[in-house]
Amino acid sequence: MAKELDFLTKRSEDYSKWYNELVVKADLAEQSDVRGCMVIKPYGYAIWEKMQRTLDDMFKETGVQNAYFPLLIPKSFLSREAEHVEGFAKECAVVTHYRLKTNETHDGVIVDPAARLEEELIIRPTSETIIWNTFKNWIHSYRDLPLLVNQWCNVMRWEMRTRLFLRTSEFLWQEGHTAHATREEAELRAQQMLKIYAQFAEEYMAVPVIQGVKSETERFAGALDTYTIEAMMQDGKALQSGTSHFLGQNFGKAFEVQFLNKENKPEYAWATSWGVSTRLMGALIMTHSDDNGLVLPPALAPIQVVIIPIGGKPEQVAAVDAAVAPVIAELKQMGISVKYDNADNKRPGFKFADYELKGVPVRLVLGARDLENGTVEIMRRDTLEKETRSLAGIAEYVKQLLDDIQKNIFAKAKAFRDARIYECNDYEDFKERVKDGGFFLCHWDGTAETEAKIKEETQATIRCVPFGIEQTPGVDMVTGKPSKARVLIARSY
Amino acid sequence: MAKELDFLTKRSEDYSKWYNELVVKADLAEQSDVRGCMVIKPYGYAIWEKMQRTLDDMFKETGVQNAYFPLLIPKSFLSREAEHVEGFAKECAVVTHYRLKTNETHDGVIVDPAARLEEELIIRPTSETIIWNTFKNWIHSYRDLPLLVNQWCNVMRWEMRTRLFLRTSEFLWQEGHTAHATREEAELRAQQMLKIYAQFAEEYMAVPVIQGVKSETERFAGALDTYTIEAMMQDGKALQSGTSHFLGQNFGKAFEVQFLNKENKPEYAWATSWGVSTRLMGALIMTHSDDNGLVLPPALAPIQVVIIPIGGKPEQVAAVDAAVAPVIAELKQMGISVKYDNADNKRPGFKFADYELKGVPVRLVLGARDLENGTVEIMRRDTLEKETRSLAGIAEYVKQLLDDIQKNIFAKAKAFRDARIYECNDYEDFKERVKDGGFFLCHWDGTAETEAKIKEETQATIRCVPFGIEQTPGVDMVTGKPSKARVLIARSY
Repeated sequence: MAKELDFLTKRSEDYSKWYNELVVKADLAEQSDVRGCMVIKPYGYAIWEKMQRTLDDMFKETGVQNAYFPLLIPKSFLSREAEHVEGFAKECAVVTHYRLKTNETHDGVIVDPAARLEEELIIRPTSETIIWNTFKNWIHSYRDLPLLVNQWCNVMRWEMRTRLFLRTSEFLWQEGHTAHATREEAELRAQQMLKIYAQFAEEYMAVPVIQGVKSETERFAGALDTYTIEAMMQDGKALQSGTSHFLGQNFGKAFEVQFLNKENKPEYAWATSWGVSTRLMGALIMTHSDDNGLVLPPALAPIQVVIIPIGGKPEQVAAVDAAVAPVIAELKQMGISVKYDNADNKRPGFKFADYELKGVPVRLVLGARDLENGTVEIMRRDTLEKETRSLAGIAEYVKQLLDDIQKNIFAKAKAFRDARIYECNDYEDFKERVKDGGFFLCHWDGTAETEAKIKEETQATIRCVPFGIEQTPGVDMVTGKPSKARVLIARSY
Repeated sequence: MAKELDFLTKRSEDYSKWYNELVVKADLAEQSDVRGCMVIKPYGYAIWEKMQRTLDDMFKETGVQNAYFPLLIPKSFLSREAEHVEGFAKECAVVTHYRLKTNETHDGVIVDPAARLEEELIIRPTSETIIWNTFKNWIHSYRDLPLLVNQWCNVMRWEMRTRLFLRTSEFLWQEGHTAHATREEAELRAQQMLKIYAQFAEEYMAVPVIQGVKSETERFAGALDTYTIEAMMQDGKALQSGTSHFLGQNFGKAFEVQFLNKENKPEYAWATSWGVSTRLMGALIMTHSDDNGLVLPPALAPIQVVIIPIGGKPEQVAAVDAAVAPVIAELKQMGISVKYDNADNKRPGFKFADYELKGVPVRLVLGARDLENGTVEIMRRDTLEKETRSLAGIAEYVKQLLDDIQKNIFAKAKAFRDARIYECNDYEDFKERVKDGGFFLCHWDGTAETEAKIKEETQATIRCVPFGIEQTPGVDMVTGKPSKARVLIARSY
């Protein structure tokens, strides 16, 4: 493994290549033989499961319930909402037949032409249409509202150029869909879910994010407002990590979802939708990891502590087995997931490199001398710092260290990002500097034309109008026209 | 609701209609506008989530890890394993195109003929092929084995006649796939997973099951042995509730999954696969429920206890609010999920009927007189028995009652089933009696011809060769030929 590790490209050499290699070498995911679709391997899936469990609890705290809606959507549903069809009906997988039959030479199968569907079905790229078509039957009175539903599922958007976790044809996600009696309530819900995403990203993933609202061009197809959280990767590019949409009455009208209000008058329901996906895995990997491999936040690490005995003789290992048993028990009792790796078919050096590659936050190593001295060597993955400590009280120390690592990697990522947020008022200056990455706060005249010009000339896009910064009017850096506020511009994934 | 409840058909009138109505009225699931695909509603999904969580923990206890494999499978993969293609390549959803485009009249979308896939893709009906195609890259040495993987996902098998939960084109399930170095280890794993399914069915679902092995005709396509758990519904029919397959080296050979054994010689890996699906919801509903609605086992009920205040005046309700607050806190601390329904827009009678319909195991009712007397009325859903008890110590009593209900509904279902298991040696007698349902233990000569004759003449099938019964040789009840063992025959879902 020490040898294999040499094959992990350095970030400074080729950041993109480093990422692609890391995802595969750390056993997170791999390409499948099905174009654009990935296999999420057990270690990668274990991280995703922790994300799911945490987010699911956070959603339920706010009254959301899970449900499940069909994978396939009738083609005609997509056309119901005019903007939505423009955004989603293009690159999607189309089911046209429901049967195969044996071929004439009896050595394979062919599509049975007799089993053609009357109406083609689309594999869901997102489920607003099928869900609002269902909500029609669930919503009659204001008493049925709010309706707060979420589903964890797979979706598919045909992609020509894919990258593991960041852009794949099939991906896993959650999509929340809510219906409300008033515009205000729906807008607040969309904002509330954005805050939950931001909280999850910062507290669990240790990824600092900027919250804001998208420009009209960058909105979800069919939304009146799209809220976003944007994270900065180590190459200075932005990664859109979660979005929450205020959909107005667009889907209510398209699917005729009306309710009787308190005055017994019919009104169209107000909608939101919001989602995060396995793309979060990409954000997690790219924010913290280094040239030795993954760095995982303790809150989401499948293995938080690994314990490795050194000293080759069986009786030495047996002595370590006995010495660490109470430590393992104590850690488990604290709710800390610990792996004791005393396998005799791999050398300690191999194990060290492998657990570093996999981002295990804390490593304990014990050899014969440690047993004599009652000590243990402890290493933290984030800084790679080692120290030798007394074995007595080590569990409590590990617990504190895990908290410290969680805070430290967030602080590190935040410092990195904050040092790369620039106010910029000069377009020539911007064009030059944006090549090196970073988030640029610039005045914008609010037109789609200027937005398109910036994108075409610099490959950077308006990520959002950020919340939480003091805004003063100014002039657009490109056109010199008046601008109400600065927007966040960056190259992105 | 009392009125609506009258619309729930009685089981004695039409068992099938009762089931269909109950699933919809209890808010478990409904048909979608997509042919054969269901919507699982929040209340139904909450039960499924509890099943998932419990099973997932049981799998992980045995070393299984979750992963995720692609939804779409290249058509040619299905042809690799000769029997598998016969079983699964027939009724499946076929993706032929990857793009839609706007139609000529600009009011809809059509399939873009230019976006035809070179090779058609199938929506997974089960994932042995894509998973073993992946395992090929994961397995090189005996050190890589056993490989124990599971995925929770959606699958699709095109069905012409569907019933909610029991038979739908799309359904949710888990599919475990394991690879082993020896035949013995794989066979033991297949049997181990069957035992876990049986344990889950009996301990959590309170559904007694018969474990056994399928006849060759009824085996999974590509398996050497299919193990099954069979449950009896209240109409005496069998419901196959979970299967575990020993696949031999069939998929190892079809996908060239070889490993170097300890002697450094190449061998094909041995396989198992095993699955349970949302069909378990059907088993749960049909085993316990009655003419008033669902009866849920406390271990899987989303709401275990409901508390309802009676007495219409606001100050009376406020007094109940105050009195039950400590009870609710105590129940929650015991890990019991409790709902306090003091909504003022529904009458108590409506609430009573609704929570009965939804199968909430225990109901507490408090009115003004109860507050004076320090009492509470407690009803258990399984027997509908009511009693009035002291409010002091009620939480502890509820906890014991929930345990008692869990045991009681299992015992009731087991007594029902055991009274309908018949040894039968006469085919004429069998033909007459099987119409009324029940499990028949009959001698069988082991031929597919006899099996087909029974099926054709009685619509009953050999469910399994049951484990755990004493077997003595005899003569086939149809042909009079020698028989080694009795098999379980029944009509089934």
